[in-house]
Amino acid sequence: MSEAIILAHGSGGRLSHELMERILLPPLANPLLDKLDDSAVFESSGYLAFTTDSYVVNPIFFPGGDIGKLSICGTINDLAMSGAKPLYLSLSLIIEEGLPLNELKLIIQSIKATTEKAGVKIITGDTKVVNKGQTDKIFINTSGIGAISPNINISGSNAKVGDDIILSGTIGDHGMAIMSQREGLKFEISVESDCAPLNEMVSQMILASHKIHSLRDPTRGGLATTLNELAHQSDVGIVIEETKIPIKEGVRAACELLGFDPLHIANEGKLIAIVDPHDTDKILASIKSNQYGKDAAIIGEITDAHKGKVVLKTKFGPSRLVDMLTGELLPRIC
Amino acid sequence: MSEAIILAHGSGGRLSHELMERILLPPLANPLLDKLDDSAVFESSGYLAFTTDSYVVNPIFFPGGDIGKLSICGTINDLAMSGAKPLYLSLSLIIEEGLPLNELKLIIQSIKATTEKAGVKIITGDTKVVNKGQTDKIFINTSGIGAISPNINISGSNAKVGDDIILSGTIGDHGMAIMSQREGLKFEISVESDCAPLNEMVSQMILASHKIHSLRDPTRGGLATTLNELAHQSDVGIVIEETKIPIKEGVRAACELLGFDPLHIANEGKLIAIVDPHDTDKILASIKSNQYGKDAAIIGEITDAHKGKVVLKTKFGPSRLVDMLTGELLPRIC
Repeated sequence: MSEAIILAHGSGGRLSHELMERILLPPLANPLLDKLDDSAVFESSGYLAFTTDSYVVNPIFFPGGDIGKLSICGTINDLAMSGAKPLYLSLSLIIEEGLPLNELKLIIQSIKATTEKAGVKIITGDTKVVNKGQTDKIFINTSGIGAISPNINISGSNAKVGDDIILSGTIGDHGMAIMSQREGLKFEISVESDCAPLNEMVSQMILASHKIHSLRDPTRGGLATTLNELAHQSDVGIVIEETKIPIKEGVRAACELLGFDPLHIANEGKLIAIVDPHDTDKILASIKSNQYGKDAAIIGEITDAHKGKVVLKTKFGPSRLVDMLTGELLPRIC
Repeated sequence: MSEAIILAHGSGGRLSHELMERILLPPLANPLLDKLDDSAVFESSGYLAFTTDSYVVNPIFFPGGDIGKLSICGTINDLAMSGAKPLYLSLSLIIEEGLPLNELKLIIQSIKATTEKAGVKIITGDTKVVNKGQTDKIFINTSGIGAISPNINISGSNAKVGDDIILSGTIGDHGMAIMSQREGLKFEISVESDCAPLNEMVSQMILASHKIHSLRDPTRGGLATTLNELAHQSDVGIVIEETKIPIKEGVRAACELLGFDPLHIANEGKLIAIVDPHDTDKILASIKSNQYGKDAAIIGEITDAHKGKVVLKTKFGPSRLVDMLTGELLPRIC
């Protein structure tokens, strides 16, 4: 077998089968995937969540992760943000001719490790190969299906005046890790992506309380963009306090150096929870008990003032409006 | 709004929202999609089929279709080949910076028309934008969920010795349409892609008979590759007769001109049905009653000889082994 991907690996013919049988299927094998029909078939009843994301991150290997880990975590997290328990994923690869097979193997190993950690299964997939120069290394789409218990109603539309806003940890880690890698910048303190599956954290939160109104992971566009989306979707105002937002010293320094607002920098292992204030302490404790939630903090609240808008109380006293990201700081961040 | 896609349309921030609200959501609106949470939520019970495909076809507009129509038909057909009724699709776009907005609008209109024709809904989606030159125009991933009635058991593993093999129409139309467009070849007889949703045809077939053992759509790699997959999956032999395989004169001529074997050319609106011979006539009649099945024919049968292999009885008399596609005839065919 060739040491790099060639066009015939995407032909649907013999070499596609070889690629599947030698590289893709063995690490990911499970009874539903192994049937190799055009669709995978599973049984279910009740409410299901369905989501999709394509990952085009550049570089494909970065401090704290790679495109494989990211493509599993991202879709798992989108399911978890609806209060769903992630069950099944699809995996679709678009590969540039010439990608070294060893890199593909590393990515598949990373996918395997992340699905095992999160307790989900890949049950259907697809591989396309595109001529050299017509795409960049590898893009991955994962779609996902999760199960939602009948008593759960978590949505970006459910934030209520008086609710507390919890953030599960430090902001900006993923974006600055990618940036540092891409530009070859050396920061004094190294920065790693926070890329992580949050489904276990969400399960623990739901066990702790049924008064979680909204969950959202602040990925592209950062905390600022996601809070604006929530304010808009629930038609409420949001106030957050700068001094309460956790941020690592290395990320803060890198942002200052480059003139970035950390509120606009992508995260891949953090969530925002908007919760009934009666249960804030219980929910915060459950987040902090999770390995990915140790730095969780209450960062603000929902208000009936300035509906649809997000206001930041700065560390120096005055407040300012925080807008969605405009323009593009970091293309191909995820 | 800019007349072409810019990087900020993929930022997750303000321009991403504008793109969604102005271009993507209005044509595709439905209550599940409109919630705009990280996942769409729906209720279901019983057996579900789940499938995924990324589409990288080049050119993105071709005789008989475009990448939008193809991306809906392809995934609908994969669901239908499991005997599922397609219900919900995801839509994930990877767009090259600089794609004219008008082209994107045409693709979305085509997606809308095809989903409406097939009776499916797009309920979740994603958009990424990649720097100019780092991808080619637009790639689309669609994943799909369909419902399978409890008494249906259709799989590539179910072919039985003595079964008939029905092909729903002419072969090679999609591949040769792409080829003619891409290479600027002028064939004497014009060739159009057969790209079509086959879910209604499959519903009619299932109403006609419960003795459909296997269904498969012969896309990449063509009829030859798909029959080899079925022979392998069911551990049976397959015999087909060259004179019974429907092919349009223009496709035959183009294949002869270019030295292609039409058995290896992709189709996007055809199916192979492997059926109990007692119900062949009923099933064939139901296929012929569908607008996409008028040229359907019985092309061969399942045998206990040469297990795992496909044999073609040629029009001149002798038989030959028909292998999977090796190498790659037409990269980016779908």
